Amino acid sequence: MRPSEVVELGDVRSLARVIRWLDDAPEVGREVLKRVYHRTGRAWVIGVTGPAGVGKSSLINQLIRAFRSEGRTVGVVAVDPTSPFTGGAILGDRIRMQDHEGDPGVFIRSVATRGQMGGLSRSTFDIIDLMDAYGMDVILVETVGVGQDETDVARVAHTVLLVLMPGLGDEVQALKAGLMEIAHVFVINKKDRGDAERMRQELRGVLSLAPEARPWRPPIVLTDATRGAGLDELVQALREHRAFLERSGEWDRRRQQYAFLRLTEAVRTLVMQGIETRLHDPQVQEWIQAIAAGTLDPYSAAAALIERFGK
Amino acid sequence: MRPSEVVELGDVRSLARVIRWLDDAPEVGREVLKRVYHRTGRAWVIGVTGPAGVGKSSLINQLIRAFRSEGRTVGVVAVDPTSPFTGGAILGDRIRMQDHEGDPGVFIRSVATRGQMGGLSRSTFDIIDLMDAYGMDVILVETVGVGQDETDVARVAHTVLLVLMPGLGDEVQALKAGLMEIAHVFVINKKDRGDAERMRQELRGVLSLAPEARPWRPPIVLTDATRGAGLDELVQALREHRAFLERSGEWDRRRQQYAFLRLTEAVRTLVMQGIETRLHDPQVQEWIQAIAAGTLDPYSAAAALIERFGK
Repeated sequence: MRPSEVVELGDVRSLARVIRWLDDAPEVGREVLKRVYHRTGRAWVIGVTGPAGVGKSSLINQLIRAFRSEGRTVGVVAVDPTSPFTGGAILGDRIRMQDHEGDPGVFIRSVATRGQMGGLSRSTFDIIDLMDAYGMDVILVETVGVGQDETDVARVAHTVLLVLMPGLGDEVQALKAGLMEIAHVFVINKKDRGDAERMRQELRGVLSLAPEARPWRPPIVLTDATRGAGLDELVQALREHRAFLERSGEWDRRRQQYAFLRLTEAVRTLVMQGIETRLHDPQVQEWIQAIAAGTLDPYSAAAALIERFGK
Repeated sequence: MRPSEVVELGDVRSLARVIRWLDDAPEVGREVLKRVYHRTGRAWVIGVTGPAGVGKSSLINQLIRAFRSEGRTVGVVAVDPTSPFTGGAILGDRIRMQDHEGDPGVFIRSVATRGQMGGLSRSTFDIIDLMDAYGMDVILVETVGVGQDETDVARVAHTVLLVLMPGLGDEVQALKAGLMEIAHVFVINKKDRGDAERMRQELRGVLSLAPEARPWRPPIVLTDATRGAGLDELVQALREHRAFLERSGEWDRRRQQYAFLRLTEAVRTLVMQGIETRLHDPQVQEWIQAIAAGTLDPYSAAAALIERFGK
């Protein structure tokens, strides 16, 4: 099978193959991506974030069902290490596909972390773009929200869904600190586990502290994903955000931002690939010995390496 | 305060300052690291990994206590997004320091993820090296183990402690797939929550499947960290692994491997810094427009950017 044979729109099997290539033969995978890139920009990317244990995966299962019932195709990228989607890839496909098995309109991929230090696979962006190019109408990106000021999910997603549950008092604190800025729709899932209505009031209070008048006021939806409660309201809230994006020009502005991010990532990928091949040079080996001996520090060695090979 | 004033061994306040500089003024922080780098290579780096919820943080608290009672200084780097150490940094220092407050021989830092896509802060290695250079005898690095074949914690740590708990049947499966390769000491924590003894037998069975005779046979220790049960046995197992490392020459070999990793990371840091400053060039802006329009793919643009600025 050659790259030229795998560019059919909607061909989920060839999509799966190209995504595997991104790991096994990155240059071939990227060659396909180059060819289909002009087809990207159609998918609606929805980030689903929130702490571990709030039920993001159940909610995603329900969202898949809801979008499928409208006839839309759905891709899921699970980059949450605690997600059963991701866990499924490791622990034996437990939950991963079972609810949507045999539905060619659903395509789920987990992104294995490349070790905690190295961060997530560089191919995450490639996978999102490929799902887009292969005709997925909606792409759900599941991440763990840990409250940092700026999360990358906000940079790849059109709509960010923040999932919480009653009793997470500290989470509301975290929202004050930053997550409030990036979420477009709030969900209080497992609504019967505590005083969800009070939590909604508290959240509203926090949101009303926004320094300036904002054109989009994030709705707060109460759900119980395992029973499907609140799902219609949630889907409606998402739809309204999408309509807002298109109406306000945000949809197009976001495409510009994504292009910038995409270019940065692509440069990083190509540069690192070039450097990795040079690390076996004898001079470099000498530097490594010196770093191990403590007679040379890594940054001075890195500067020397770039000076020598970067031209 | 200038970099030259913050190189006193054991001065925890200046260590805290330099670590902050790594984020706020990376070049200054790295300048200090260059100066103290020759003092690194003494610390014993112990990776503490395992799924969320098994009690890694309680165990770390107990290990801190045990090492302190021997008079050793202890650094902790929490890179686990579900850890209360990390959570403490975000949600209000809840648990972070409370058990060891006021003890100048304990230094705890959480590493905020730079967004899920961007992976962990590039400064993780710098923090480990700085703690080492500032005289921390033991450095505990807490990460979430999610079962990938090769985790970076194995590349930075001398000793990898894998923490499990009874009832995690699937985890034993995961071990077969790869974690077995990287762990030197196994802990079954919360041992009274289920049949810990049976789990130990299962684990032993898995470990006996190792393809070749190994010079180090990983011990399996049963603990209940909240009550301190099994801690003496665990500390003893860790000590034996350290003795093994020194006896076998592994301690020195690992220093070479770390130097290689360290150089790669330093090159990456410097290269990305150089590129980020060029992304605002007008030609680059044109490429970004074209990527957004779908008329140019990110990898072709990245190659053109490297061609133009990389020389």
